Amino acid sequence: MGVEDWLAGYDTNDLCIATAASHSSLQIFHGAKKLGFRTMAIIAGDRDLRYYDAFPEAKPDTVLRLDSYHDLIDLAPELRAQNVVIIPHGSLIEYMGAKDFTAIEVPVYGNRHVLDFESHRGKERAWLEEAGITMPREITDPKDIVEPVIVKYHGAKGGKGFFIAKNYHEYKRQIQEGEPHTIQEFVMGTRYYLHYFHSRIEEGGFRLEGDDGPLGDLQMLSIDRRDESNIDELNRIGSIKELQEAGIDPQFVVTGNIPMVIRESLLPKVFQMGEGVVRESYKRFGGLWGPFCLETIVTPDLEFKVFEISARIVAGTNPFIQGSPYSEMVEPGLSTGKRIAQDLHKAAGQGTLGLVCT
Amino acid sequence: MGVEDWLAGYDTNDLCIATAASHSSLQIFHGAKKLGFRTMAIIAGDRDLRYYDAFPEAKPDTVLRLDSYHDLIDLAPELRAQNVVIIPHGSLIEYMGAKDFTAIEVPVYGNRHVLDFESHRGKERAWLEEAGITMPREITDPKDIVEPVIVKYHGAKGGKGFFIAKNYHEYKRQIQEGEPHTIQEFVMGTRYYLHYFHSRIEEGGFRLEGDDGPLGDLQMLSIDRRDESNIDELNRIGSIKELQEAGIDPQFVVTGNIPMVIRESLLPKVFQMGEGVVRESYKRFGGLWGPFCLETIVTPDLEFKVFEISARIVAGTNPFIQGSPYSEMVEPGLSTGKRIAQDLHKAAGQGTLGLVCT
Amino acid sequence: MGVEDWLAGYDTNDLCIATAASHSSLQIFHGAKKLGFRTMAIIAGDRDLRYYDAFPEAKPDTVLRLDSYHDLIDLAPELRAQNVVIIPHGSLIEYMGAKDFTAIEVPVYGNRHVLDFESHRGKERAWLEEAGITMPREITDPKDIVEPVIVKYHGAKGGKGFFIAKNYHEYKRQIQEGEPHTIQEFVMGTRYYLHYFHSRIEEGGFRLEGDDGPLGDLQMLSIDRRDESNIDELNRIGSIKELQEAGIDPQFVVTGNIPMVIRESLLPKVFQMGEGVVRESYKRFGGLWGPFCLETIVTPDLEFKVFEISARIVAGTNPFIQGSPYSEMVEPGLSTGKRIAQDLHKAAGQGTLGLVCT
Repeated sequence: MGVEDWLAGYDTNDLCIATAASHSSLQIFHGAKKLGFRTMAIIAGDRDLRYYDAFPEAKPDTVLRLDSYHDLIDLAPELRAQNVVIIPHGSLIEYMGAKDFTAIEVPVYGNRHVLDFESHRGKERAWLEEAGITMPREITDPKDIVEPVIVKYHGAKGGKGFFIAKNYHEYKRQIQEGEPHTIQEFVMGTRYYLHYFHSRIEEGGFRLEGDDGPLGDLQMLSIDRRDESNIDELNRIGSIKELQEAGIDPQFVVTGNIPMVIRESLLPKVFQMGEGVVRESYKRFGGLWGPFCLETIVTPDLEFKVFEISARIVAGTNPFIQGSPYSEMVEPGLSTGKRIAQDLHKAAGQGTLGLVCT
Repeated sequence: MGVEDWLAGYDTNDLCIATAASHSSLQIFHGAKKLGFRTMAIIAGDRDLRYYDAFPEAKPDTVLRLDSYHDLIDLAPELRAQNVVIIPHGSLIEYMGAKDFTAIEVPVYGNRHVLDFESHRGKERAWLEEAGITMPREITDPKDIVEPVIVKYHGAKGGKGFFIAKNYHEYKRQIQEGEPHTIQEFVMGTRYYLHYFHSRIEEGGFRLEGDDGPLGDLQMLSIDRRDESNIDELNRIGSIKELQEAGIDPQFVVTGNIPMVIRESLLPKVFQMGEGVVRESYKRFGGLWGPFCLETIVTPDLEFKVFEISARIVAGTNPFIQGSPYSEMVEPGLSTGKRIAQDLHKAAGQGTLGLVCT
Repeated sequence: MGVEDWLAGYDTNDLCIATAASHSSLQIFHGAKKLGFRTMAIIAGDRDLRYYDAFPEAKPDTVLRLDSYHDLIDLAPELRAQNVVIIPHGSLIEYMGAKDFTAIEVPVYGNRHVLDFESHRGKERAWLEEAGITMPREITDPKDIVEPVIVKYHGAKGGKGFFIAKNYHEYKRQIQEGEPHTIQEFVMGTRYYLHYFHSRIEEGGFRLEGDDGPLGDLQMLSIDRRDESNIDELNRIGSIKELQEAGIDPQFVVTGNIPMVIRESLLPKVFQMGEGVVRESYKRFGGLWGPFCLETIVTPDLEFKVFEISARIVAGTNPFIQGSPYSEMVEPGLSTGKRIAQDLHKAAGQGTLGLVCT
């Protein structure tokens, strides 16, 4: 049984867009409602969801309250009976775990199998580097730290516990022994989070050509910068070094987002990077489509270093529920949430939901 | 004589929205004009107001030029004859002083009596803490400073003279002896200024229940970060400590605002805080309604510390004259200025201006 | 032969707006298309312009691909045959050089002769200071450096190589001997890039009076802050001093832009500065019209220091392709690119293109 079997029983004129009640759910529901879809928020536990009441244009039609997100596995038949399509976001996957999320027998927008590549640092690096992207150097032996590095614990949520070290001594002082982690060159430059959208079923716009024919089109809908607590306002009190000497370590927990635009002369490279990632994804695992994000640093030499890919909608698109300076040149008021809904709406209309869901 | 008496003589189909020509007046007038109100800018002295000419959709219909804002007291009968409703903002109150502002015999949108609570640090703290809000710790004896604190002079304008100290020595070096001030824990995290709106006369949306029945609804329309000179760009030259060693002290004067969004998983708490503040305000002083702002820091543990409340429109709403990502999900293009005008328009239409004005 | 002669052969109902494919070209084309103009992107070399395909509302009708931008000189007759009006931006002028750009025999929107004043630091300073603007102090002898200064190489692109020094020693360590440069007081405060627009042919709005009659009107359409790599995120790793001790020097290469608003009480001064600059421009070189930008620092005393003028559209307007909080009060959705197109459209309609082009 696969997505085509599940979809065979769907009334595609009456789809219900579902996602977990967090992250970018307001944007996803707002977009879905614009295209006339029913909407469903999924929540585990007794979390207070009254905030939806304050945003009537985004408020989901129904709330599915569970004991645990893992219950979605067993509820699949009921969800399918309601013509549910799940829009994945980082929090949903974090809550369910990659294994359970991949196993859920309900149509998921996008390619759920990208998770194998995204969560495996080796596979991710091979994919992106083959796509022509430059990533920060990785250091395997901490004794080799001779310039600034950032240390990231595997599977850490929202940057929790990440730290910067400029030498082995600083690394040693901060590392939690025994925790699996990655040591990455700390690239000095300015951060731009590029929000792409690749449709498999659109033919206009920026066209992607694969080895076996056209792959659809590519858009870049908006750009943000993540705002991280406490690192992004520590400068108001002292330098990292001064604070560390006072026993205060910087932290990198995402708390919000700031809208940005990038220098226009960098756009050719922005699109080349997005194109490379998508083309290579078809070669490796059947494709990455829908929204994705390259998390980049632009150096003073105007070169991109990509430190991460998010293979679905990122919360950094939330400043653009009204549209962005970039999406304005596609269609006024276009958010990533609405773009997802458009793709599903077109697929439903032409009977190709099986192409955009897995 | 009270607001009901003043309003008895009003032609409520021909109200005039007035405020001082500064702060957020463009936004207030822009919103008022959208709802068809007449508008009046109040200004003391010979300040150049030609900038209004450059913004025709916000330009006030009339300008009332005074020698001093205190003249408003005597002009009350004439203002009432023109069906004036005053929208208060921080600059108007600063110019007039709390005492004179409270005494003006003209309908004021919102509860003017909140000023007693807001300007008295003890009352403000009791109100907010009872509302379930966590504020930064206060230090009464400067000798107890063992971690970063921010020192604020009472009644200081726009952050003028505020300073950070990490110990008693740094405090001693910077304090202006004899000036009344508060010493507050300097919370490390990222700042989010949350722009709420509570209507007493709306029943939809996020409903507030009081002990004696419904209180109306609550919205969160936008979020900004204040930009302060020179603290917010000092990092371009050195750390605070390095600069202080060179005889340069940081300053905290508000010069502008940057649009932000906050992590969606924090929204339940955002609304719980707003709800607590409003409910408690009815118990203590008859209610806080219209726009208000909680000025917060989000810590790396994703907890809010609230360092201030502004019980009226804040200039941080100015980036959103076109609407915000949040207000887009209420009504496209909705600013706080327009929301105020909507509330007045509805109250005027149903004969309940006395409920929204004092 | 001058602009009137060239325009004599034009079909002014069928103008083609042309600019170099970079900088703010998306915005310029997006605005031009809204007013119904044909559009043309000019590009030298084999740069990848497929990114235009992703923005259909901005995609130029034609691309003129050259070996070198200097070829535009010889192509002037052909461009005129297509009724081309060139919109200059910083990259086009940088690519062509001021001399070639000034010599091109095609109508250019705005006053091309401003370049003489803008590129000559002495003339620029005399113009702005006479206009009532305060600029950072210049230091002629590096031995006089006793407070923070910024050192800028002449003609440096995008801030490349700029550095900060707090004394002669730091200057000496960083300076590239033999390179012509300017030493400027480093003003401590927050940066605001003010985007003005002056139309010679509009009479409404903020009116400018010249010595010999009205000069047209003045607008302020938006404000941004430039984002510079790596200076604007260095604080995430250490203070400038700490980094310099580790052999890492800060750099000031523009990589993007962040939207801002400024404290409303500063707007009277914002317009006075803009007014002074325009009035003085008519006295000195026949006028500065169309878009221009004052690049300012607001000190904690709420005073403006202007460190640069850009006498044409700046890339800092790119966050506002949807309009800005300020332009919303002029006309919803108004960008600087659209404002340029409006000015040309009106001039074409009333037969005064020769007033707005040179």
